[in-house]
Amino acid sequence: MNISRLVIATHNSGKLREFRSLLSNTDWEILGLRDLAIEQDYDETGTTFAENAALKARNYSLHTDLPVLGDDSGLEVVSLGRRPGVYSSRYAGPGAADIDRIRKLVQELQQAGGSRDARFVCALALAREGSVLLEAEGECRGVIINEPRGARGFGYDPVFCIPELGKTYAELTEDEKNRLSHRAAALGKLLSRMCL
Amino acid sequence: MNISRLVIATHNSGKLREFRSLLSNTDWEILGLRDLAIEQDYDETGTTFAENAALKARNYSLHTDLPVLGDDSGLEVVSLGRRPGVYSSRYAGPGAADIDRIRKLVQELQQAGGSRDARFVCALALAREGSVLLEAEGECRGVIINEPRGARGFGYDPVFCIPELGKTYAELTEDEKNRLSHRAAALGKLLSRMCL
Repeated sequence: MNISRLVIATHNSGKLREFRSLLSNTDWEILGLRDLAIEQDYDETGTTFAENAALKARNYSLHTDLPVLGDDSGLEVVSLGRRPGVYSSRYAGPGAADIDRIRKLVQELQQAGGSRDARFVCALALAREGSVLLEAEGECRGVIINEPRGARGFGYDPVFCIPELGKTYAELTEDEKNRLSHRAAALGKLLSRMCL
Repeated sequence: MNISRLVIATHNSGKLREFRSLLSNTDWEILGLRDLAIEQDYDETGTTFAENAALKARNYSLHTDLPVLGDDSGLEVVSLGRRPGVYSSRYAGPGAADIDRIRKLVQELQQAGGSRDARFVCALALAREGSVLLEAEGECRGVIINEPRGARGFGYDPVFCIPELGKTYAELTEDEKNRLSHRAAALGKLLSRMCL
């Protein structure tokens, strides 16, 4: 089965932009859920990134004949028992903005007073017509800083710092992010697992 | 068929390094011909990049059970009738170095006096046990300048300038080259043509 169009199971324009950039050298036309006028939202009931990625891919692939790539990703902070984890985007409750979540995270970390080690995790699942065909997971390790830095990216990017570069995710160039990010790592593995 | 090791059909360490960098996020272990102690050289008798890429992939895949990726790439200069083309690496005769080929190219272009438009082309072919399974071609457009600039890369890189960036191939960072190069374009297409 050769594919020419791939649907990313997201309504998040920042996430879609990252996938478009990561896949810019492929033959594929990359579509988001909005491009297909799919407005439905599914509850992310999984307890792991992999479960949620599979859930999104499976559910949205029932809305289209095209292959659908589900992505679930988030931040795990060691001293917070891996929170916010799968709740990364809901960490400060419904209706909260990125800056609210960042504030809550930094506050909790200051109270906890432990390690600032963290990792961004991305789980991907590729599905077609309700069945998951392929899965992959990638990570990027860093530390959480107190003061947000950088204007790029989204979510927790401004407080996630990669020590080797001395830059936050929000300060990375597009090329750097495409090379280093948890999403790039997961996507590289997924592509290399597509069988010939 | 899932693959875990991929052989690049080249003895050229610069080319191998580029493939390793481009494929760094995959699961694959990337091997060169030297890693398999394959010393044989085949004449590149094809008249197109695609023919030579297929020829290399096919021939070297008879030396191993692993999948083999053949690459043939070179420079086409519009006002030189697309030369040096498939003869890019042999343009100044056997035993010549990169700088000899660069000098010859610049000299011919100064004599011809025409357009300086050029493109780097990369043809890829993936073969296993003597059969080509998949092919792809990528390009990058630029202009030839008279004075070599930059210390990275190899071959004609120092005189191939990308006008949008004002940089020669030899001045690109690894990330920029991984995004823009003819090899990146071909590899992106090839990966996206692997069927699921």
